[in-house]
Amino acid sequence: MTDQAGRTRLARARGLSDMTHHQVPASFTVTLSCPNRPGIVAAIATTLYEADGNITEAQQFDDVETGLFFMRVVFSIRTDGERLDWLRARLGAVAERFHMNWTLHDRAVRRRVLLMVSKFDHCLADLLYRWRIGELPMTPTAIVANHPRAAYGHIDMADIPFHHLPVTRDNKAEQEERLWTLVRQTNSELVVLARYMQVLSDSLTARLSGRCINIHHSFLPGFKGARPYHQAHARGVKLIGATAHYVTADLDEGPIIEQDVERVSHFDTPADLVRKGRDIERRVLARAVRYHLDDRVILNGNKTVVFGD
Amino acid sequence: MTDQAGRTRLARARGLSDMTHHQVPASFTVTLSCPNRPGIVAAIATTLYEADGNITEAQQFDDVETGLFFMRVVFSIRTDGERLDWLRARLGAVAERFHMNWTLHDRAVRRRVLLMVSKFDHCLADLLYRWRIGELPMTPTAIVANHPRAAYGHIDMADIPFHHLPVTRDNKAEQEERLWTLVRQTNSELVVLARYMQVLSDSLTARLSGRCINIHHSFLPGFKGARPYHQAHARGVKLIGATAHYVTADLDEGPIIEQDVERVSHFDTPADLVRKGRDIERRVLARAVRYHLDDRVILNGNKTVVFGD
Amino acid sequence: MTDQAGRTRLARARGLSDMTHHQVPASFTVTLSCPNRPGIVAAIATTLYEADGNITEAQQFDDVETGLFFMRVVFSIRTDGERLDWLRARLGAVAERFHMNWTLHDRAVRRRVLLMVSKFDHCLADLLYRWRIGELPMTPTAIVANHPRAAYGHIDMADIPFHHLPVTRDNKAEQEERLWTLVRQTNSELVVLARYMQVLSDSLTARLSGRCINIHHSFLPGFKGARPYHQAHARGVKLIGATAHYVTADLDEGPIIEQDVERVSHFDTPADLVRKGRDIERRVLARAVRYHLDDRVILNGNKTVVFGD
Amino acid sequence: MTDQAGRTRLARARGLSDMTHHQVPASFTVTLSCPNRPGIVAAIATTLYEADGNITEAQQFDDVETGLFFMRVVFSIRTDGERLDWLRARLGAVAERFHMNWTLHDRAVRRRVLLMVSKFDHCLADLLYRWRIGELPMTPTAIVANHPRAAYGHIDMADIPFHHLPVTRDNKAEQEERLWTLVRQTNSELVVLARYMQVLSDSLTARLSGRCINIHHSFLPGFKGARPYHQAHARGVKLIGATAHYVTADLDEGPIIEQDVERVSHFDTPADLVRKGRDIERRVLARAVRYHLDDRVILNGNKTVVFGD
Repeated sequence: MTDQAGRTRLARARGLSDMTHHQVPASFTVTLSCPNRPGIVAAIATTLYEADGNITEAQQFDDVETGLFFMRVVFSIRTDGERLDWLRARLGAVAERFHMNWTLHDRAVRRRVLLMVSKFDHCLADLLYRWRIGELPMTPTAIVANHPRAAYGHIDMADIPFHHLPVTRDNKAEQEERLWTLVRQTNSELVVLARYMQVLSDSLTARLSGRCINIHHSFLPGFKGARPYHQAHARGVKLIGATAHYVTADLDEGPIIEQDVERVSHFDTPADLVRKGRDIERRVLARAVRYHLDDRVILNGNKTVVFGD
Repeated sequence: MTDQAGRTRLARARGLSDMTHHQVPASFTVTLSCPNRPGIVAAIATTLYEADGNITEAQQFDDVETGLFFMRVVFSIRTDGERLDWLRARLGAVAERFHMNWTLHDRAVRRRVLLMVSKFDHCLADLLYRWRIGELPMTPTAIVANHPRAAYGHIDMADIPFHHLPVTRDNKAEQEERLWTLVRQTNSELVVLARYMQVLSDSLTARLSGRCINIHHSFLPGFKGARPYHQAHARGVKLIGATAHYVTADLDEGPIIEQDVERVSHFDTPADLVRKGRDIERRVLARAVRYHLDDRVILNGNKTVVFGD
Repeated sequence: MTDQAGRTRLARARGLSDMTHHQVPASFTVTLSCPNRPGIVAAIATTLYEADGNITEAQQFDDVETGLFFMRVVFSIRTDGERLDWLRARLGAVAERFHMNWTLHDRAVRRRVLLMVSKFDHCLADLLYRWRIGELPMTPTAIVANHPRAAYGHIDMADIPFHHLPVTRDNKAEQEERLWTLVRQTNSELVVLARYMQVLSDSLTARLSGRCINIHHSFLPGFKGARPYHQAHARGVKLIGATAHYVTADLDEGPIIEQDVERVSHFDTPADLVRKGRDIERRVLARAVRYHLDDRVILNGNKTVVFGD
Repeated sequence: MTDQAGRTRLARARGLSDMTHHQVPASFTVTLSCPNRPGIVAAIATTLYEADGNITEAQQFDDVETGLFFMRVVFSIRTDGERLDWLRARLGAVAERFHMNWTLHDRAVRRRVLLMVSKFDHCLADLLYRWRIGELPMTPTAIVANHPRAAYGHIDMADIPFHHLPVTRDNKAEQEERLWTLVRQTNSELVVLARYMQVLSDSLTARLSGRCINIHHSFLPGFKGARPYHQAHARGVKLIGATAHYVTADLDEGPIIEQDVERVSHFDTPADLVRKGRDIERRVLARAVRYHLDDRVILNGNKTVVFGD
C-alpha cells in the first residue's frame, strides 16, 4: 500500500471527503507546553499527518530543570470546516493525554491589538508604520493615551479609534475599568504598552496576564524604576539597552521576551542616552510584538521560551 | 491500555527485552535532508518513540525554494547494541522511503579532527585551548603545518602528533598526497584550516567535500583573495569581519557556516584591522567547528542550514 | 599678570570691547584637513583662545599613509558680529598658512536638506520623525520623488514642498536639471537619497560632490548593484547590512560614512532579509545624516574620517 | 620670519642644540584632567610645539556636569634627555597653572604588570597569548594564583615568576601583605585580576586604587555577587555580558572601563552561559588592559573617560 493510499484510507475512515484536497491550503500554528515524556512529538506529528497536514516549521525545547516540554508547529492543510473540527478534537485529545497547555491559531486571522502610549510616541509611530506596510500582522483595535489626541498630531492613526484616558491618583481605578471594558468590547487579544508610563494595578495586570507587553527603557535587571537612562549615565556603563517583557504585578520583573543594547561612551549625556535608547526601544518592542503575533513566545514560569526566526 | 503498556507491547513485538530499560541512557543525533512531503516528522518521531527514545531537541527547516526539508533530532535512549541495531535499521528504512541523506551519531563518541596551520597560530591556540577545557568535543588527530614545530614553540600541543609539510610549487602534489594519507590513517572525519594559507588543489577539496572548514579573514563576499584587511582599509569600510566556510574547489566561494564582524574606524591602520581580525577569526572558526561537531550544519547546495543553539 | 588679565589685554589689543562678555555664548564647529606638520593644533587652539573661545570638543586624526591631518573643533564663544569677523579672518590666515580645507559653522544654524525617495518610504518616514522630535537639526527644503504624492499618503510631510519628478529614459536629463534648479533655489546644502532608486548622472553627482548621501541596501562592497538582499540570500551569508555613503560617479563606490549589520539565518527568505534590512537601512542612514549635520565627516580621498560620538 | 625660523629661535632661546633634530623621534603620551576653563588646549599644544613636538593623536572631553576637562595627547619628538627634561618642566608648569592631574609616558617603555588568577585560566591564557604576539605592550612581572602551578600545566608562562598564595580565612591579611610586597618589589604599575576570585581587602584596594583591573563575569550592574551566570539564567535574560572595571573597596561598584554582551536564549543552560561568558570575559578584559596600557583611561570620579581607538 502506498503512502498516499494509506493517508486516503485514513481520511475516508474519519468521514472526510477527498474534495477538500482541491482547496487552497491554509496555515496554522500550534503551541504547547506540558511535562516532558516520550511520545509527544510523535503524537503531534502523527495527528497532523493523519489530517493531511504538512509541517513546515517545528521547534521544541526540553527544559531539563523544570521537566517541561515546549513546542511550536506550523503546518499547512487543505482544509474545510469539518476537517478542521476533526483536527481540533484530535489535538484536544492529545493535549488532554499529555496535560498540555496549548493553542491553535489560523495564521490568516490577524490578532486584535490595543495600543497604549504616553508622552513619547516613537514606539507607537514605529508600530503603526510597521503595521501599515504589512510587517506586523495585527488589527489595531484602539489607541489609548493619557494625553489628548492633539499630542500626537503628526501620527496618522488611520481609522483606529483613539481614547483619551488621563490618569490621576483619584481616577486610576475608574480609568482602568474603562480600559478593561475597552479591551473586552474590542476583543483585543493583546495590549501593547508602547512607552505607556502609568503603572497598571495588580488586578489589571492579573487580568492581562500573558497578553500585555511592555517596553522598559533599560536593560533589565540593570536599572529598574524611573529614569533608567539617568541611572545608567550616573553608573558610567558602556552599553545601554531596552527590554520587552510581559507585564506582571511585580513591576520590572515580568518574563523577558527580547532585549538589545547599543554602545555608549563618556561623551554621551543623559539626553544622548535617551536618543540612542529610542532606537533600541522601538526595535526591541517591535520584535517582541512580532514574536507574540507569530506565536513564537511561550511562558515558562517567570521566563519565556522564544522560538526565534 | 496505558501508554506505557502500549510501548512495552511494541518493544516486545520487536523482540527486545525490557532489561535494557535499566541501562544509563545514551544520547544520539540524527540529521537528514530530503525532498519535502508530508509525513517526515511523523515517521521519524514515531520510529524513535517505538524504540523508547526520548526526543530532547528537534529543529527542522523547509526550504520552499528548493523543496528540500532538513531536520536535526537529538534523542536519548536506554540502549544496548541490539536495540540500536534495530533502530538503525528502522531509520534506514524511513530514510529510503523519503530519499534522505542522513547521519546518526552517538554524542559520546568524539569526532577525529586534523588541524592545519601556517604562520599565524591564534586560531590553532584558541581551538586547542577550547578542546583542553572541554568546550570542543573532539579528538585532535594531528597538527599539520607548513612551518616547522619550532614556529609554535609556546603552544602546548599535548600528545597530538605534529607534521611539518612545507609546500613549494614543486612538491605541492606530493605533500597533498601525504596529507591525504594522514587524513585516512588517522581516521580524521574533519579537517580544520586554522589559518592555513596554502590553497588546496581541486582534487583534494573534492576528497574533503563537506568535511574541511576554513576561516577566511574577511567578511565574504566582501574582500576575496589575499590581504583582505588591507583591501578593507583601502576601501574605508566601517566594519570588518571573518567567515568560516566549507572548502570547495571554488576558492572563497564555499558554503558559509558562520560570520561575524567588529566595528572599525579611520583610526585603524591595516595592522589594527589585523589585530581586531584575529579576535573575530578565532571566535568565528571556533563556533563553526563546534556547530559541525554538534551536527548542527547540513549542506544545502552551496549554502548551509545551521541549526543554532 | 593673571591669565584673565592677559586675555583681556589681548582682547583690547585687537579692539574688541569687553561688553560682549555679557552675551549668551554661541557654539561653532570648525573642521579642517591639510598636510600634516607641527604646529597645527597650537595655531588653532591659540587663535580660539585669543578670541575668548572655549574649546568643548576636539578630535583629530593623523593619516600616516597620506600625510594628511584632520581636525574637528567645537567651541563656544560670547560673540558679536565684530568679534566673529575677527575670528573668521584669523582662522582664514591660519588656514592659508597650513594649506587647509576648512569650514566654520554656527551650530545654531540648521542645514538645509533636500530629501529624495522612490517607492519604499521607510527611510523618509524615519528621517522626518527624527527631524520632528528634534533629533536631526536640519530644515527640510523639499521632498522629491519619482512617484506621486499619493504614494506617501500616510506620511505627514508638514509644510515641506513635495515635487513629483518621474524619471524615464527620455526625460532623465531634463528632470535632473529641474532637480538641480531646486537644489539651488532652495539653498539646499545636503541632498539625502532616502532609498531613491534612480541612478544620478555623472554630471549631477559631480555637482553634488561631498553633499549627497545615499543609503545602499547592502553591506558594501559585498553585494553591489540591484537586489542585494536577493544576492545575499543566494550566497547564504549569515549577516546582512547596509551602507551610507557619499554619492560619486562610480556607483556603489563612494566614500563610506556608516555601516551596520544584523544576523540572519537559513530561515530568512529574501522577504525576511528585506524586512530586516529596512531596520538597518533607516538607522544607518539616520546616523550618517546626523554625523554630516554635526560636521563629523571629513572626506579623505575616497574614504571618510568620521569623528564619532 | 618663517615658521621654522621661529621654532629654531625658540629652541635656541631655551638653550637646546639643534643637533637633536637628527635623532630618531620618540613617542609620548600625556593624559590630564582638571577643572575646565579656556586656554587648556592652547597651553598644551603651544608647549609641545615649542619643544618641536608633533601631535599625532589628541582627544578631549568636557564633562559639563562636573566641570572637569580630560585630555589625552600623543606626540612624537626628536628628543634627548635635556630636551625632555625641559619639556617635562614646562608641562609641569602648565599643569600647576591649571590644577591638573597629569601623566607623561614614553610609549617605548612597557608597563610592568602583575597578573592574578584563580581556577579558571581562560583570561590568563588569553592575556599571555596577546602579550606573546606583541598585541599587549607590557612586561608581566609575576603571576600570582591561589592554586598551585600544576593547576595551569598547559599554559606556557615563559620566564614569568609564578607565586602560589593560597588564601584562607586565617591567612588572608598575611597573603595580601605578601602580594603587596611583590607588587612593590617588582615595580608593578598595574595589577590585573584575570578571574581571580578572592575579594581583596579594603586596605589593599585603596593601595591599588586606579591601577588594579578586574573582570566581572556579569554585565554590571545587572547581576552583582556570586554566580552571575546562574542569576542571569534564573532571570531569563536574552543577552549576557561581562564588565572590566577598576577595583574599589565597594565590590562590583568600581569605575567601569569596558563591557560587552552576547545573545543567549532559553536553550542556553547555565553551563552554556558560562561557556559564552568565557569569550566575552577574555575579550572585554583584554580590551580594558590594552586601553589602560595605552593611557586611554582617565578616572572621572566613579566613572571613566575612555578615549577609544
